[in-house]
Amino acid sequence: MALIVQKYGGTSVGTTERIKNVARKVKASRDKGDDVVVVVSAMSGETNRLLALAEELAPNPPAREVDVLVSTGEQVTIALLTMALEQLGAPARCYTGPQVRILTDSAHSRARILDIDAKQINEDLQLGRVVVVAGFQGVDESGAITTLGRGGSDTTAVAIAAALKADECQIYTDVDGVYTTDPRVVPKARRLERITVEEMLELASLGSKVLQIRSVEFAGKYKVPLRVLSSFKEGPGTLITYEENPMEEPLISGIAFNRDEAKLTVLGAPDVPGIAASILGPISEAGIEVDMIIQNVSTSGATDFTFTVHKRDYEKALGILEGNKEKLGAREIYGDPKIVKLSLVGVGMRSHAGVASTMFKALSAEGINIQMISTSEIKISTVVDEKYLELGVRTLHTAFGLDDENAPVEAEDEKA
Amino acid sequence: MALIVQKYGGTSVGTTERIKNVARKVKASRDKGDDVVVVVSAMSGETNRLLALAEELAPNPPAREVDVLVSTGEQVTIALLTMALEQLGAPARCYTGPQVRILTDSAHSRARILDIDAKQINEDLQLGRVVVVAGFQGVDESGAITTLGRGGSDTTAVAIAAALKADECQIYTDVDGVYTTDPRVVPKARRLERITVEEMLELASLGSKVLQIRSVEFAGKYKVPLRVLSSFKEGPGTLITYEENPMEEPLISGIAFNRDEAKLTVLGAPDVPGIAASILGPISEAGIEVDMIIQNVSTSGATDFTFTVHKRDYEKALGILEGNKEKLGAREIYGDPKIVKLSLVGVGMRSHAGVASTMFKALSAEGINIQMISTSEIKISTVVDEKYLELGVRTLHTAFGLDDENAPVEAEDEKA
Repeated sequence: MALIVQKYGGTSVGTTERIKNVARKVKASRDKGDDVVVVVSAMSGETNRLLALAEELAPNPPAREVDVLVSTGEQVTIALLTMALEQLGAPARCYTGPQVRILTDSAHSRARILDIDAKQINEDLQLGRVVVVAGFQGVDESGAITTLGRGGSDTTAVAIAAALKADECQIYTDVDGVYTTDPRVVPKARRLERITVEEMLELASLGSKVLQIRSVEFAGKYKVPLRVLSSFKEGPGTLITYEENPMEEPLISGIAFNRDEAKLTVLGAPDVPGIAASILGPISEAGIEVDMIIQNVSTSGATDFTFTVHKRDYEKALGILEGNKEKLGAREIYGDPKIVKLSLVGVGMRSHAGVASTMFKALSAEGINIQMISTSEIKISTVVDEKYLELGVRTLHTAFGLDDENAPVEAEDEKA
Repeated sequence: MALIVQKYGGTSVGTTERIKNVARKVKASRDKGDDVVVVVSAMSGETNRLLALAEELAPNPPAREVDVLVSTGEQVTIALLTMALEQLGAPARCYTGPQVRILTDSAHSRARILDIDAKQINEDLQLGRVVVVAGFQGVDESGAITTLGRGGSDTTAVAIAAALKADECQIYTDVDGVYTTDPRVVPKARRLERITVEEMLELASLGSKVLQIRSVEFAGKYKVPLRVLSSFKEGPGTLITYEENPMEEPLISGIAFNRDEAKLTVLGAPDVPGIAASILGPISEAGIEVDMIIQNVSTSGATDFTFTVHKRDYEKALGILEGNKEKLGAREIYGDPKIVKLSLVGVGMRSHAGVASTMFKALSAEGINIQMISTSEIKISTVVDEKYLELGVRTLHTAFGLDDENAPVEAEDEKA
């Protein structure tokens, strides 16, 4: 008998039929003898419906009231799921975030969980009840309703699992696990049986949007065993692990890519102390987030400085650099929004030399020119022309032995 | 400068346009220098939408979860109204029932308010804020969400007005006040400037559904000055008063009617002690509520016993009486669902003789036969054939000088 926290997202509870389906899955776990706490999101579409109402009243509605408004979404779901469970003969109790009580800071619409009172949940579990908790929401010290921001239900589930010292936190979603890369790009992509939390963090932040990144950080911090699996399809999903066992670790776990970035280069700036701060200061003051940053060793006292930003900030960032060109003493400002970032992720690469050279060789064999390189302990990222996205990912997937040999035969579509 | 509690029902906040209209009305009161607390219902249709979802999951959903579900309706409205107020430049704060906190007993779906903590509201008012509170809902000792039952938002408004010792509690609705009778039946019906709480209670329970009866009882208990007025039309509405000033009281304030009752008679039952209990015991055990009860003085040891029930319970009640006929020793059981109850209401009748005789004379002059009579201190009710409803109400309205002489000329439609 285990204590399991299960989280079902908006798509999984999008209709009353789907809520019945979730109730049956929860009851099945219960019937196996497990204690179950369920965390749910708002029915899909509900949050947007509520926000549309708000926008009819105020173009920029105050965050405090937006939280009061949108938190009703999960409250509806917990009530409906509890009714469905009781209808199936499974005794259940539901609680809003404030009721549990999930204490957060006061940063409306992006609050952070500070503490969870597990007493009420434990009491209900001891009475044999399924406990249904509203995800995404909490309450601050003053009693105001807060929300954790979009996707925050994952974080709620992990935080409750940590507070209860649950045996496993299961995140039910519309995919059946974490894949070696996006199966829409590489049909031979394979579901991973397990992945380390560090790899998951790199994959998530690089665009594999299976789990909300904050929930993974949270799980890592409290060592909550986390499993991603499908609401609609039976299967073991992917387990996110914390113990490292390099002997068993595959070299590379997955290949992530990000098409949302744009590249900016300051050419021939004087290589003096503080030049990086002079270039990036005005960018960050304008609220623009920077991802990769590369500065080459200088030759002849001048340096080339390149960084990437989100595509939506490209024009703005370019304008800022152009405006500062003289002040920076730069020879030229150059930008390119038509790029893509490809990343290898794997804890195994720590103990293996040659991952980078295998990567560069494989790309060059396909005639793919590498524009930028950046590395961390468990990740190597390269920036290439966006037209090489599919070819690049497919090439690396094969080069690192990730292909699922049982996958359907891939359609021929070389260099799109 | 006064402290006003305003309550707006579901129709008044049924769309975002109407919520903007309410925000303008609240701001106008604020701009006059009044402190305003606003109590709102769910947007019209919302509660039914939520209950329909519940019924898809459970034919008879548990009351505890229904309360969690439907209480989201007012929570949406308080958030939207507060946004609309802030958009107009009126600082505002909103609170759910549990947040205020409105403490109730644990009778889900029909809870009673036990206590209101006015501290938070007073703090906000002192900071110059409009305070927006969700009607209809509260929280019990254990922290569970409760609701007061349909129409409970009126009760919330009155209870808050009592707790704050407000100068006036204004109930905004889709009618512009309390009328001498239903204007759809008598076009000459007049809006009353004022009415006593006792009269209001008699009128409300008799079918003039302007205010929820529990809220009127509550207002009477705490002597909260209560005013009914329209959300859509300017005007002073009707003030519900507590001081009695018989010199100024009109004889009759209004005429109520009820077409939902049916009449049952046990003829020739032995006039022995306990016969009333023998007749009505099985009726009340079947969960049927009885309204009027009349037993005539007996002649020759036998008595005729008549009572009225809701039309929907007529067949059931008749069956019960038929089944008990022999046991009761009755000669005959007789029933008639085609009746209507007409009632005169007025505190003035206490000090005036002759009201009853004027009533009976007026009805008989029109050939209307009276089947039953029942009286209380401020009310006289008669049961007549349902075909006399319109004629009877119109006749009494004129006979007691209630006609509005400025009303549009009434169409000729004698004895329908």
